[in-house]
Amino acid sequence: MSELRRDPITGRWAIINTDQPMRPEDFEKARHVPRQVQTCQFCPGKESQTPPEIDAVRKPGTKPDTPGWLVRDVANKFPALRIEGDLNKRGIGLFDMSNGVGAHEVVIETPEHFRDLADFAEEDIINVLKIYRARYLGLARDKRFKYILIFRNFGEEAGASIEHPHSQIIALPMVPKYVLDKISGAQNYFEYRGRPVFSDMITQEQDNRERIVAQNDDFLAFCPYVPRYAFEFWIMPKVQQEHFSDMNEKQQAGLAAIMKDMLTRLKMVLSNPSYNYYIHTAPVNSGGHEGYFWHIEVIPTLMQIAGFEWGTGFYIVNTPSDMAARYLREAR
Amino acid sequence: MSELRRDPITGRWAIINTDQPMRPEDFEKARHVPRQVQTCQFCPGKESQTPPEIDAVRKPGTKPDTPGWLVRDVANKFPALRIEGDLNKRGIGLFDMSNGVGAHEVVIETPEHFRDLADFAEEDIINVLKIYRARYLGLARDKRFKYILIFRNFGEEAGASIEHPHSQIIALPMVPKYVLDKISGAQNYFEYRGRPVFSDMITQEQDNRERIVAQNDDFLAFCPYVPRYAFEFWIMPKVQQEHFSDMNEKQQAGLAAIMKDMLTRLKMVLSNPSYNYYIHTAPVNSGGHEGYFWHIEVIPTLMQIAGFEWGTGFYIVNTPSDMAARYLREAR
Repeated sequence: MSELRRDPITGRWAIINTDQPMRPEDFEKARHVPRQVQTCQFCPGKESQTPPEIDAVRKPGTKPDTPGWLVRDVANKFPALRIEGDLNKRGIGLFDMSNGVGAHEVVIETPEHFRDLADFAEEDIINVLKIYRARYLGLARDKRFKYILIFRNFGEEAGASIEHPHSQIIALPMVPKYVLDKISGAQNYFEYRGRPVFSDMITQEQDNRERIVAQNDDFLAFCPYVPRYAFEFWIMPKVQQEHFSDMNEKQQAGLAAIMKDMLTRLKMVLSNPSYNYYIHTAPVNSGGHEGYFWHIEVIPTLMQIAGFEWGTGFYIVNTPSDMAARYLREAR
Repeated sequence: MSELRRDPITGRWAIINTDQPMRPEDFEKARHVPRQVQTCQFCPGKESQTPPEIDAVRKPGTKPDTPGWLVRDVANKFPALRIEGDLNKRGIGLFDMSNGVGAHEVVIETPEHFRDLADFAEEDIINVLKIYRARYLGLARDKRFKYILIFRNFGEEAGASIEHPHSQIIALPMVPKYVLDKISGAQNYFEYRGRPVFSDMITQEQDNRERIVAQNDDFLAFCPYVPRYAFEFWIMPKVQQEHFSDMNEKQQAGLAAIMKDMLTRLKMVLSNPSYNYYIHTAPVNSGGHEGYFWHIEVIPTLMQIAGFEWGTGFYIVNTPSDMAARYLREAR
């Protein structure tokens, strides 16, 4: 018999296949196989082919838009939203609309085309996190923006059109619905019980232990009880922190370590699958978000979304979280 | 400049690329190319390879589980949920869960392996709709079920693992979140304005005309102002009807005609793309759903979902609805 499970934050349900669960080898995996691209615009020496550098971590003495960078942030050449102009919110009959004002940047994570984020030295991941943080704070100063999403598409099957390791940052003039559902779920829980739902979740995961994959002083990595996808995992600070940018240096180093550890496990268990991750931080330029913990969700690309998922917004997960966690835990 | 548009029913936003919109020829399409499968369990003569027939439209004098059927409904061999047993709702700390009780059936739409739904005679589509309706009413009699989703995956890229034309029906013991968002959005609108949001939408679409593709006495087919996907379209009754099963015979014939027309247009404009459709009817075994209209959403498989969409729940749509509607309108 499968199980129906309800996410305590958003109220979202999932069907968990506990009957005939799928092991890592049962998935037709979208393995990411890199191939050299002669024309890669993100490689060193091609700096003039991207929009100008907004921020970078560089070797001392090197100039913007020349080689010598370790991490480089530029505007997206084909932005989903544009930074210039007014929102000009307006109604057309029933519909609310505004101009597509926002920001869309690309974080080029390394000069090395073929180096996986999982294979970065921890210091290199820390450099990526520093740029994430600097751009997060930079974009948050623009009062038009209400939400900043940092995300990464790895592998063609996960929607990465460029192979060179990179993440993306989009600043939005509104809080997206999926985040809003989490924020308001967390707020309702906090009002009702006086405790953050995320703390209760962490306590329960630590008592149970089955779904925990890794942890260090500041972070817990676990397969959530109500995932949307097989082998999905979350990385969460152990103590409340609303914004990704609230991390101190020690926490940043702890996050880099657990990210490297978890991405390496994922690579080993599922033969280098394509994946997406995104950071769910609290909204910016708005009131406090009581009981909210920022966190990272990592989703390997293992399943196709079809009519059932589109029609219901809920997911059939073929590997129960405790089983996925066991595979990930035993990988190293 | 792109546009940000907000769906008046659910509050969901979309980014519409009005800057450099994509035409049908710009998509790398997941074209559906059928191939003969010797072992198809859904072909006539293989009736014993499926679970027993639950319902069928048959030639007079033919027996269940033998050839002679035109449409055939059977249980899914690999059900996501099982019909037997108790829900046994329970809490595990934070989490709510229950047994995976539900129903999962397959509607085999034609004995002909290679016949597309778009190429069915209208009478054949009416037969499919009759089985949809009979099973909907049949499953709704089971008081454990709160929602019945009828959906269709066409083509491998849209998640169809079996090629022979078929739809699926899943009965769920709860109302899924995406439907709940629509129901409660429609209810709020109705309470506030005393009119169904769907009527206002139909009126506005008919005044504007740009997004309408086809209509007949009872149904309107249009590309919604706030789609999730390029070339998405909705088919909606013109007058309020909560449940799919409320249709009379004339309406059923009207729906068959507009479905055939729209699926043919889709096939012509996008070179036989893979697609999903699902019927969003009102929940069953629960109170009235004031202001709700059942409708069908059709989503061609043109784009990959990546980190941005997973992280926000909102979508970047590269073909504005009026442009998509124009292509679909001019196809025939």
